[in-house]
Amino acid sequence: MKNTFGNSVCLTIFGESHGDMIGAVIDGLAPGIEIDGGFIESRLTLRRPQGNISTKRVEADEYKIVSGVFNGKTTGTPVCILIPNTNTKSADYERTKALARPGHADYTANIKYHGFEDYRGGGHFSGRITAAVVAAGAIIISALKKNGIYIGTHIKKCTGVSDIDFNEYKTDIEKLNNSLFPVLSNEKKDEMLLAIENAANQCDSVGGVLETVVIGVPAGVGEPWFDSLEGVLSHALFAIPGIKGIEFGAGFNFAEMKGSEANDAFYAENGNIYTKTNNNGGINGGISNGMPLLFRCAVKPTPSIYKSQNTVDINTCENTVIEIKGRHDPAIIHRARVVVDSITALVLADMLAQKFGTDFLGGEK
Amino acid sequence: MKNTFGNSVCLTIFGESHGDMIGAVIDGLAPGIEIDGGFIESRLTLRRPQGNISTKRVEADEYKIVSGVFNGKTTGTPVCILIPNTNTKSADYERTKALARPGHADYTANIKYHGFEDYRGGGHFSGRITAAVVAAGAIIISALKKNGIYIGTHIKKCTGVSDIDFNEYKTDIEKLNNSLFPVLSNEKKDEMLLAIENAANQCDSVGGVLETVVIGVPAGVGEPWFDSLEGVLSHALFAIPGIKGIEFGAGFNFAEMKGSEANDAFYAENGNIYTKTNNNGGINGGISNGMPLLFRCAVKPTPSIYKSQNTVDINTCENTVIEIKGRHDPAIIHRARVVVDSITALVLADMLAQKFGTDFLGGEK
Amino acid sequence: MKNTFGNSVCLTIFGESHGDMIGAVIDGLAPGIEIDGGFIESRLTLRRPQGNISTKRVEADEYKIVSGVFNGKTTGTPVCILIPNTNTKSADYERTKALARPGHADYTANIKYHGFEDYRGGGHFSGRITAAVVAAGAIIISALKKNGIYIGTHIKKCTGVSDIDFNEYKTDIEKLNNSLFPVLSNEKKDEMLLAIENAANQCDSVGGVLETVVIGVPAGVGEPWFDSLEGVLSHALFAIPGIKGIEFGAGFNFAEMKGSEANDAFYAENGNIYTKTNNNGGINGGISNGMPLLFRCAVKPTPSIYKSQNTVDINTCENTVIEIKGRHDPAIIHRARVVVDSITALVLADMLAQKFGTDFLGGEK
Amino acid sequence: MKNTFGNSVCLTIFGESHGDMIGAVIDGLAPGIEIDGGFIESRLTLRRPQGNISTKRVEADEYKIVSGVFNGKTTGTPVCILIPNTNTKSADYERTKALARPGHADYTANIKYHGFEDYRGGGHFSGRITAAVVAAGAIIISALKKNGIYIGTHIKKCTGVSDIDFNEYKTDIEKLNNSLFPVLSNEKKDEMLLAIENAANQCDSVGGVLETVVIGVPAGVGEPWFDSLEGVLSHALFAIPGIKGIEFGAGFNFAEMKGSEANDAFYAENGNIYTKTNNNGGINGGISNGMPLLFRCAVKPTPSIYKSQNTVDINTCENTVIEIKGRHDPAIIHRARVVVDSITALVLADMLAQKFGTDFLGGEK
Repeated sequence: MKNTFGNSVCLTIFGESHGDMIGAVIDGLAPGIEIDGGFIESRLTLRRPQGNISTKRVEADEYKIVSGVFNGKTTGTPVCILIPNTNTKSADYERTKALARPGHADYTANIKYHGFEDYRGGGHFSGRITAAVVAAGAIIISALKKNGIYIGTHIKKCTGVSDIDFNEYKTDIEKLNNSLFPVLSNEKKDEMLLAIENAANQCDSVGGVLETVVIGVPAGVGEPWFDSLEGVLSHALFAIPGIKGIEFGAGFNFAEMKGSEANDAFYAENGNIYTKTNNNGGINGGISNGMPLLFRCAVKPTPSIYKSQNTVDINTCENTVIEIKGRHDPAIIHRARVVVDSITALVLADMLAQKFGTDFLGGEK
Repeated sequence: MKNTFGNSVCLTIFGESHGDMIGAVIDGLAPGIEIDGGFIESRLTLRRPQGNISTKRVEADEYKIVSGVFNGKTTGTPVCILIPNTNTKSADYERTKALARPGHADYTANIKYHGFEDYRGGGHFSGRITAAVVAAGAIIISALKKNGIYIGTHIKKCTGVSDIDFNEYKTDIEKLNNSLFPVLSNEKKDEMLLAIENAANQCDSVGGVLETVVIGVPAGVGEPWFDSLEGVLSHALFAIPGIKGIEFGAGFNFAEMKGSEANDAFYAENGNIYTKTNNNGGINGGISNGMPLLFRCAVKPTPSIYKSQNTVDINTCENTVIEIKGRHDPAIIHRARVVVDSITALVLADMLAQKFGTDFLGGEK
Repeated sequence: MKNTFGNSVCLTIFGESHGDMIGAVIDGLAPGIEIDGGFIESRLTLRRPQGNISTKRVEADEYKIVSGVFNGKTTGTPVCILIPNTNTKSADYERTKALARPGHADYTANIKYHGFEDYRGGGHFSGRITAAVVAAGAIIISALKKNGIYIGTHIKKCTGVSDIDFNEYKTDIEKLNNSLFPVLSNEKKDEMLLAIENAANQCDSVGGVLETVVIGVPAGVGEPWFDSLEGVLSHALFAIPGIKGIEFGAGFNFAEMKGSEANDAFYAENGNIYTKTNNNGGINGGISNGMPLLFRCAVKPTPSIYKSQNTVDINTCENTVIEIKGRHDPAIIHRARVVVDSITALVLADMLAQKFGTDFLGGEK
Repeated sequence: MKNTFGNSVCLTIFGESHGDMIGAVIDGLAPGIEIDGGFIESRLTLRRPQGNISTKRVEADEYKIVSGVFNGKTTGTPVCILIPNTNTKSADYERTKALARPGHADYTANIKYHGFEDYRGGGHFSGRITAAVVAAGAIIISALKKNGIYIGTHIKKCTGVSDIDFNEYKTDIEKLNNSLFPVLSNEKKDEMLLAIENAANQCDSVGGVLETVVIGVPAGVGEPWFDSLEGVLSHALFAIPGIKGIEFGAGFNFAEMKGSEANDAFYAENGNIYTKTNNNGGINGGISNGMPLLFRCAVKPTPSIYKSQNTVDINTCENTVIEIKGRHDPAIIHRARVVVDSITALVLADMLAQKFGTDFLGGEK
């Protein structure tokens, strides 16, 4: 399905970095969801490049919803969101268009599309397209909130610095969603920012680990085997450029644990069932158990760096050196987290609609 | 789609741990693929419990192909494989059926299926069903081999012991596929086995990390965004019980790297293009770049342990203690790798068929 | 998706006419649906060949449910139904295996599967596989009934004889579902049977038109555009061998009507909304309007006839004549209607589950 | 999937009759397909309202391709086409918005979307959206032509007048594709036009039957059972507003035929295999046999008529009378055929890509 994801609620994306516009179509949203323009803008702001640690290409992201909304609410039919590209400098890419940028999709796109691909700024592979995902995600996040489901992501690790753990989920989530650089500890945040600026000064870039929590998902959502919550979330999350790993709960740390440590013992309190620990990240057998969903995504360093790199001229198949011009991000991790939230919201909206029906998340029923 | 995965080539699975039989239907296989019964059996043998480090429930796995094969070759129509369950001891589960086993899907299944689920031995959530996946995978693995594509998985880490890295892929893959306990270093293998037996003696269990390599996949396979190789592989791999994390190439280690270290520089040799390093695990922008595919899966410790654990009686919602009887695996990681190979083969066969058409992998065309 | 159909509730089929067994897997059924073995058998009986107007190959259809049912009810996980083939005479097909039978799929299968197809009795293209569809459908039909949804199909036209129209839906449906040869008028039924026997005596076969009604489907089920009720029903119904046309409501008769005649005027009665006529077959804009669903399927004459026919030897590409041996049906229309009911039930169960959630149709919730 | 259709090549549509714009996204098109702007415009012209027999709402259809095309050719990534709505008179709909127009989707949309739907001009259910389908289809039709596949549709029956049969397919197809009112016989065409004008003068509307032929599709395309050519084509074609029936080859006429008449005898000529008749419409067992694909769609009379009609006020549930104002088509059949061609092209492109791989239909490979 390539550029479409989801079953009951599904997202289609299109556009290129230097094309006229990028966009997204969300289909299957329940009717009656309120569109909060201010919230959409605030999410786009969180994704927008910031100061020294981001690219100098700043787009206004003046999104426009051209279908599926009537009288300020979703109609239940496809919502198309368009965002124009206004600040493109394609000339930067002309000179080096035959030189595959290491770590980027230039080479694989060239093989796959036989040279017909739009190479400017990474074309369809550009992180630019995630602006449309974020706008779409904002609509879903609003609707989830009204149903008591909250999503938050912090930078768990970056430049060798680790953030503290979540403490009080709801408060922490709120803090993160109001922060341009989402770290729970202000001290660690300053350390990370300093280290990113240093990397930028060295014409280099950094990666990191994002940790996401979702609270309020009822137990019983997800499927055994191929539509496990882990499987569907990871499928969608790997769409985000730069994500190269995902782990749920204890994840790779399970390798060091015994079953007696790893198992999350159940206990009952006031008629509800909980687990004492949450090593399984809120998921057993692919299905939510009512505890917070918890997962981490590994983000690789931005491949565009100003250092010169060895590469190949795709047309002549000769070894050469590339010096990437253009405008790039020394770090995208803080921007990527907005996309992680958005994709997570999409997947949950879809799985909730599959389980509870298409009106779930919608307005007065 | 729950129990069906794939587009052009797709797999449907069914069955319960203590039901009559389990099975799999593979649809969309190219016509003319030879069925190598001996190879299927050898793969089932690799998955079968072994000695002290496995459950005492050993099934003969006398699989039967009841459709889609004619004169020893695939016809192109659905191949149904059935495997009877013969060695079940359901009585073990009667006494504790209301007690949710920590780390298992008992509780989430109960919520999702409202108590109608088959709770015996984990029912449909049991690893038992993977026997059918392995039989199906064996057919695909054979076909991939004939097309020069080889898959191998070793235990990269278990009980705190790490295996050496791949050295010569093809030789290593062959060694692993002929080994009941797939570790590249014989020394490390002995260490791991000893540690697993120790855990078993303590009524406990262990997890680990599996590392998989695939060689021979041509560049250009995969899609940007939602059908990235990473996304589709992870979606399918998370179906395997116990897998809680996946990382491609450097994965979570990217968090410690700079862009200048992380990017895989291209170079040309004899008209072919390669990368010097393979931090991206053979995938750029979701699409294969011709280098080996490399990924790791985190496997949690088997949740069934003989130690007593705190839990809840699902019916009465009261706190209690469970002592799991039945027959269990102190480690499943060596068995799980056969399933990882099989699922990987399925995903590749599907993506190759989507790109090159439905006859790819088939017989005389 | 080839041999799998559906989203929330989906059916996978497999098997060949002369293979070991045929079967079906239904996934996504709500948990807690009672399995009524007697009803399944009664549906298989309606599909089974009868007397002079059917093939002499009569299969016992001793179906076996091997998964997804526990304590007599669905668990919510995949239900696999197997039916062995016991009465096969493959020798009949050996002699003429290279001769493409006109009207059959022999030639197209040979092109598509490059000669690897199982040609015996039509292989995977055989109507034999519909026995599994009928068994699966019976489970769904039972569940629909408990929710007030009833399906019935009569032979509207056959051998130039037309049946009367539906009069009182619920009574008529019940009559049809208890009748081996489903015609509302007993007189017309006798005429049709006589004409079919005449055709059989002339070594020929007949087709006809089936008319199906479904009552009890609430308004609001279906989607605009690509998942219209008409679109999804027709997609699935064309899977039935021999069906070559489908029309909803007035269907092709709309060509002769004016808008003022064709439009179904709405009226309200006791707070409910109805239409005076039902030219739209209960569907407006792809969505059910609460009136009975009404559609007709054109069934072509059974292509297997005893008359000699011109054809080509696929291997030598030479013109020749075929005389089909084997055992064939002079009419399949009365048997096909059981399959039409079953497929209709599948589609409705799927669309209802998509709209109302996965527990719809299930047991005590 | 609602507003998305296809597997390898897929189309997503969005928009409302009186919204800002409508649009379509085609994903999975092979890279290197030339975009012929003139041809797209010519197809939009064929769909545009004409003179006395069409609505007075004439849109300029100034389409814009905003993604997926670079240097005049497809890149292989999603092609988004936008068409603004410029000529809307929403006031026409305000007065009667609570009155369900008979034959329209107003009532079913209201039930499904709980009153949140955009009711103006039928909203998302409007035939207006097919303009985007036609623009998308034009790109595919161009590509199919370069591969020797031609599609043409004529009005087989309208106002009781029947057109002649196809005579020489390729010439006839060309004639139809250059004709605003596609009838093979000029005489019959005049009769139909006169009858439509008469109906319009009586404030009424007409329906009809469209007959489509496709030549050049190789044998072996399609699948048995659920992805039969008939099934997939019908699924997509029923998306077109007003289509209520479809039949392949002899279709409903099969009811009057014997097997010996219905079967299409094979014969060989110059090493190729043909059938003498084409009662099966070029499809056996769901798979193309190399003969022309031939099918007919029943189109109901446009439901918008100026005559007053009985209906219900949805809000009060009271019986009332509606007099539809606005601007309407007395006939849409000649416009619908352009959409039928487009949808047919989409389905064929998808099935060809599934069989032969994603590069099929593309540029220099």
